[in-house]
Amino acid sequence: MSEVYADRRVRLRDRCAAAGSPAALVSRPANVRYLAGGSPPGAVLLVGPEPEADVLLCPVAPGGEPADGRLDELLRQQVMPAGGGDPAVAAVDLARRAGADALAVEEHHLTVARHRAMGSVAPALRLADLACAVEQLRIVKDEDEIACLRIAAEIADQALGELLESILVGRTERHLALELERRLVDHGADGAAFPTSVGTGPHSGRRGHRPTDRRVEEGDFLTVCLGADYRGYRCEIGRTFVIGTTPADWQIELYELVFAAQRAGRESLAPGADYRDVDRAARQILDAAGHAGATVPLTGHGVGLEIDEDPQLSPSAMGKLDACVPVTVEPGVHLPGRGGVRIDDTLVVRQEADGGPELLTITTKELLAL
Amino acid sequence: MSEVYADRRVRLRDRCAAAGSPAALVSRPANVRYLAGGSPPGAVLLVGPEPEADVLLCPVAPGGEPADGRLDELLRQQVMPAGGGDPAVAAVDLARRAGADALAVEEHHLTVARHRAMGSVAPALRLADLACAVEQLRIVKDEDEIACLRIAAEIADQALGELLESILVGRTERHLALELERRLVDHGADGAAFPTSVGTGPHSGRRGHRPTDRRVEEGDFLTVCLGADYRGYRCEIGRTFVIGTTPADWQIELYELVFAAQRAGRESLAPGADYRDVDRAARQILDAAGHAGATVPLTGHGVGLEIDEDPQLSPSAMGKLDACVPVTVEPGVHLPGRGGVRIDDTLVVRQEADGGPELLTITTKELLAL
Repeated sequence: MSEVYADRRVRLRDRCAAAGSPAALVSRPANVRYLAGGSPPGAVLLVGPEPEADVLLCPVAPGGEPADGRLDELLRQQVMPAGGGDPAVAAVDLARRAGADALAVEEHHLTVARHRAMGSVAPALRLADLACAVEQLRIVKDEDEIACLRIAAEIADQALGELLESILVGRTERHLALELERRLVDHGADGAAFPTSVGTGPHSGRRGHRPTDRRVEEGDFLTVCLGADYRGYRCEIGRTFVIGTTPADWQIELYELVFAAQRAGRESLAPGADYRDVDRAARQILDAAGHAGATVPLTGHGVGLEIDEDPQLSPSAMGKLDACVPVTVEPGVHLPGRGGVRIDDTLVVRQEADGGPELLTITTKELLAL
Repeated sequence: MSEVYADRRVRLRDRCAAAGSPAALVSRPANVRYLAGGSPPGAVLLVGPEPEADVLLCPVAPGGEPADGRLDELLRQQVMPAGGGDPAVAAVDLARRAGADALAVEEHHLTVARHRAMGSVAPALRLADLACAVEQLRIVKDEDEIACLRIAAEIADQALGELLESILVGRTERHLALELERRLVDHGADGAAFPTSVGTGPHSGRRGHRPTDRRVEEGDFLTVCLGADYRGYRCEIGRTFVIGTTPADWQIELYELVFAAQRAGRESLAPGADYRDVDRAARQILDAAGHAGATVPLTGHGVGLEIDEDPQLSPSAMGKLDACVPVTVEPGVHLPGRGGVRIDDTLVVRQEADGGPELLTITTKELLAL
């Protein structure tokens, strides 16, 4: 298992060397976890000129948490002495001593103050920009990563399925969200992948709606969006239901529209497809029905160690999908004052020959009246 | 109510002007909230040369969350146009047009990449460092802020009290933590102030222990640390209990020691006291009993809009307490393999004449056998 992390560091080392930096400092927690198997709070990873110089620097925490149990055991760890300061600053000195004349750092993550402190300890060492090199490596997943996502999706499906069997009318958004999060953990999640969103009535269909004390009422749309974190991998599922026996005509119409848009998005997922074409496939159906103003900036996004990672499926996104890239497809329409519909799946892009896109979140997308 | 935020912005404006910057850009979310009443995701606050130039810049979110309902209604808001980019970059241009020749920015929060993008839009505008000016303003709380903390503490006390009435043996750390978080929300919290920590047996007494699937057993120490977020203000309470009817001698001894250390810390809270003297008051009792290696780097810290803010009560901290500063006092000892004790209160520093330190978290600190 551990060679996985060493192999990833080799790929990063090669990229950096090709760009003129013999060493790299990785500080963004999800990137540290990707390359080291875990990311203890505050830890940074030095990827040195040689594998032997790779080291995970952790801030001291006597009496605190032990380091993450799944850390790559082939990777050297160094705990900062008490009062030892910022591990990123210590890493600069280690890079210099390992013979590096330049160190690539994550300028999109390091603060100006931290970058300055790093620059001042070894003025002869040039600080270059690693940019999003690790994020780029993370886009295409291996089958072990996809297996984690598959389990995460299964857990979310189970939690959602159980909720649907319970009485919903009269309960608040906040309580439904908390119950879903408890069920995620019951089924083996390490936690929620992101704050569970439950929106009823006028709140339904909103992306990222934060649960309030509004109670579920007869005739409401109810939109639920949740995900599980399983071994660091995060999936996402969103569904919209109608409360009561007979959906109104506008509800059926809107649901069918969003369903059609979501299906079009899913069906356009293929290796080689432009990111923005996936977005357009879903978006044009909503736009054509007059909802151009009621949609969101993006139709979907990558998932993995973060719930929102590359690629972005949006009108301005540049790039093409690869096989083994997990993404969400989550169009929605929200009509101010009335509510709306969102339908959200996590899928893995696969070759046509392999059966096309693999749907991880399998809860039904029929319009259920609860 | 809203003049509160305008007044805070006046104080910041005055400080910046005195330091040579007629305008400031605040990007750290808790700082934005302190000065604007709320911090919609991604929003930044420009504090201009004149109050009329103050503006909260929010990224576009059509169909998404509305702006925070408690935002200062006297403050101008500007939503970025679709694809309008980083509001911090837009703010640079606004500052220039408002006549500022320098803009103080939060170098400890802005990334290198973002800072560079800001610098490139208006090369004639000098970017200075605001440093932790807003964090400094936040240290001393007004009575409205303290009232929120008092309610937050009451909620945490209630949630903890209810848990103590239930059966604990056989339940996992993870489930106890989830139940506590649900109870916090039941009692009116906006959420947990931080991830609830529940540690049993060998995990007890650890600071920031993340709940596992270990079940509570007879004879265990059980350490619980939780807090409520009420209107953005966050408190913290930690208690250690013993499971079963008869604590072992080592448990009673260790508990009494930590209790004495915590009391010494609490009693040393007074306006004018050095931060490190508070730390020393608690720490020396643990050190004298031979636990120097089993303690943590700090004995307490400020609380407010963040759960861990200035001041830090640690051996190397510089500065003196003021009245109306809320802090935690939370010494603990963890013995690897055996467990330990933590006792954690949130208190407000008050003048002797006002009755001395005000204890916000009032759950008993007797050693309860549950």
